[in-house]
Amino acid sequence: MDIYNIINNHRSIRKYKSDNIPDDVMSRILNAGFRASNTGNMQLYSIIVTRDKGLKESLWDIHLKQNMVLEAPVILTFVADINRFNKWCEQRGAEPCYDNFLWFYNATIDAVLASQNISVAAEAEGLGICYLGTTTYQAQKIIDLLKLPKGVVPVTTLVIGYPDETPPLTDRLPENGIIHYEVYKDYSNNDIDEIYQTKENLQETAILIKENKLPNLARIFTDKRYPKNDNLFFSQDYLKVIEKQGFMNNE
Amino acid sequence: MDIYNIINNHRSIRKYKSDNIPDDVMSRILNAGFRASNTGNMQLYSIIVTRDKGLKESLWDIHLKQNMVLEAPVILTFVADINRFNKWCEQRGAEPCYDNFLWFYNATIDAVLASQNISVAAEAEGLGICYLGTTTYQAQKIIDLLKLPKGVVPVTTLVIGYPDETPPLTDRLPENGIIHYEVYKDYSNNDIDEIYQTKENLQETAILIKENKLPNLARIFTDKRYPKNDNLFFSQDYLKVIEKQGFMNNE
Repeated sequence: MDIYNIINNHRSIRKYKSDNIPDDVMSRILNAGFRASNTGNMQLYSIIVTRDKGLKESLWDIHLKQNMVLEAPVILTFVADINRFNKWCEQRGAEPCYDNFLWFYNATIDAVLASQNISVAAEAEGLGICYLGTTTYQAQKIIDLLKLPKGVVPVTTLVIGYPDETPPLTDRLPENGIIHYEVYKDYSNNDIDEIYQTKENLQETAILIKENKLPNLARIFTDKRYPKNDNLFFSQDYLKVIEKQGFMNNE
Repeated sequence: MDIYNIINNHRSIRKYKSDNIPDDVMSRILNAGFRASNTGNMQLYSIIVTRDKGLKESLWDIHLKQNMVLEAPVILTFVADINRFNKWCEQRGAEPCYDNFLWFYNATIDAVLASQNISVAAEAEGLGICYLGTTTYQAQKIIDLLKLPKGVVPVTTLVIGYPDETPPLTDRLPENGIIHYEVYKDYSNNDIDEIYQTKENLQETAILIKENKLPNLARIFTDKRYPKNDNLFFSQDYLKVIEKQGFMNNE
């Protein structure tokens, strides 16, 4: 079935041609995003479309100078947004109370559902995409650059353009590593060995271990890629941003 | 293009036939979920597949007795999961530090991306889906029922089965209500009137206003559907669950 040709061939694209995306293609993929499920049909998200060279350079800097941000013609920043809904409520004499964590979380889910529809539609159009996890790390800088008002917080970012590479498919854990039937079955030591075996035995894993001079792949994650100090710093920072943007009035 | 026939015809299905979903179909749609982008290819989520009648009855009760939970053959509960990754790290002598908000949020995004791939694939297979926003409201009860260990928190739920209804497409805000070019352009009073005009002029809106004896649609959201006390209660409750499950060690 056609859909699996798209979904099962997804790879994150990190090298892009400079070709622009035609307006009709952009409009189709954005509208595919809007059709995604969302909480109470309130659509508590916005999407900032960045094509301007100067702004892309600033985003490149913010997203830790990953070159794809400069190369790709379009950057989409997905934001949780209660600002628009609040304004509507206030203009109608209704008293909104969505400036709390529940609605930050609902808005996050809605933004991410829209982003994935856009990703699938973009790939069906021959475009490539890459998500930028650096969005939460750099939320305040993105707020300043994209002039996000109170009630609006960056959730994730998509780089979109015509691919200039075809990287291999990345590995995934086996089905029984993710799926639990009826209730959660906790993992035995044996289960863990089996689930991570393929990933640990990849040639690229061997190369990474050698390059990083570490005894195994798990240590590369904990010591190099996502170390403790970064995790704690960015957790505190993002929570501060959520509060500052007015999403933590929980009492 | 085929993909738009699927994505642009999405409607949430709330009435299901009792037909089971064949194993090969389930396996295809679940594996489509795994192919979604995810943070650092760590796949920090699990999916609980519930088909058991007794467990479905308990889930029906938990999800505020929405009958589709009983009718549909399969309920998928998507959970943020650092338990599996932590066990792997510890078994390899690596010291994981993912028990903080940043990684709860990353895991949430990953779970939601997988859920939307599964939704799109399911619809391509002729299945219907509905997301259950009640997942966050009832997180602790779901944890107890599905035996979720520390490091695991419910994010969202999908009801899946063969549709026994074809509801009309729901409305969406116009493109200029969601999209901002280059930077966020805040909304004028006029913008708000225009963006919400179609929604406010729907026949179903007129019926809702009459039924609820309220002056407008915004008041139905603030006074009836998602009122203040519920929002504050569920915000506090979900934050407590996130902390209790070990995702708030941010210092």
